[in-house]
Amino acid sequence: MLFDRNSIVDAIKDMLDSDRFEHTLGVEAEAIALAKAHGESAERASLAALLHDCGRALGRAELRNEARKLKITDPILYMQPQLLHASVGASIARTRFGVADEEILRAIASHTVGRAGMSLLEQIIYLADAIEPARDWPDVQAIRSLSKSDLTAALRWAMDESIRYVLERGWLLHPNTVEARNALIKPEKTDLYEIPIE
Amino acid sequence: MLFDRNSIVDAIKDMLDSDRFEHTLGVEAEAIALAKAHGESAERASLAALLHDCGRALGRAELRNEARKLKITDPILYMQPQLLHASVGASIARTRFGVADEEILRAIASHTVGRAGMSLLEQIIYLADAIEPARDWPDVQAIRSLSKSDLTAALRWAMDESIRYVLERGWLLHPNTVEARNALIKPEKTDLYEIPIE
Repeated sequence: MLFDRNSIVDAIKDMLDSDRFEHTLGVEAEAIALAKAHGESAERASLAALLHDCGRALGRAELRNEARKLKITDPILYMQPQLLHASVGASIARTRFGVADEEILRAIASHTVGRAGMSLLEQIIYLADAIEPARDWPDVQAIRSLSKSDLTAALRWAMDESIRYVLERGWLLHPNTVEARNALIKPEKTDLYEIPIE
Repeated sequence: MLFDRNSIVDAIKDMLDSDRFEHTLGVEAEAIALAKAHGESAERASLAALLHDCGRALGRAELRNEARKLKITDPILYMQPQLLHASVGASIARTRFGVADEEILRAIASHTVGRAGMSLLEQIIYLADAIEPARDWPDVQAIRSLSKSDLTAALRWAMDESIRYVLERGWLLHPNTVEARNALIKPEKTDLYEIPIE
């Protein structure tokens, strides 16, 4: 075992409210299943999932404070500070929980808005967060089924739904989400030499 | 009159197929109505609307060729070359139709994907294109009504619908559209001094 799961679970249970804690265990179960289905380490998936929402322990003002210390400059994140829990959570995972695996830290940091070129572990955590057993939104069952056979297609579907959700709520749509989603699409083939060099 | 409308109409009728020509006249009528409602010149709106789709006269290979000549480097536009008709159309408006008004040219160029910080004329052409009388999609009637009293709200709704349409089709979502849409939202107020300087 790469880490002491019981002590992490206890710490997270202490940090988060009970709904968020139950959600975290659901994400862990889903992330482990996806890791096994797609050839990722189940232990890394477990650790990343258990810590993915640890930044939720902080309120909005604290998140902004921590983000300033981390030199985060993205204005959309400050205007919608709940999004900061991902990057701040990665920092907590590093400093408080001693996680040194950069890919695990990146999976925690990118699980809200995503980014283009996500690693397999990042994709697993992003998707597990969206489809864990307690999640109940239109299409979630279909995406869950698809996720076992085609991770990319399931991730794209989940990202499309996330964009629709943001539109519905009237929130700012983060460009990283759009880039991440576009990167999963195979558009019409273009000979790159057609495009002038910038 | 700033321009000879009859000769422009004749030329456009000659360049476009009949559906596209009828659409163009619908956009013109809608753009003039929006210009009158929101204090823009009806003549500039008319000219921009009549020429907004002139780039549609070109096929995909021609659009890519013209775009290369114009030193356009945006890969999404080459991968979805139908989007190039806007920038290429602005160039045709300048060179073939002698339009020198930069704002009219910009309104033609930005009418497909939009951009952050659109001028009133650009907003009018973008919206008129979406809601002209022949357009028939969910919510179009509601957006039409709203457009007379609140151009920004109507534009934001139309852009949200455009993003949903792109998701539905599985096309690449252009970052300019997202930036343009985000720029129309008043998010939670943030003291900008909270954000570290990049």
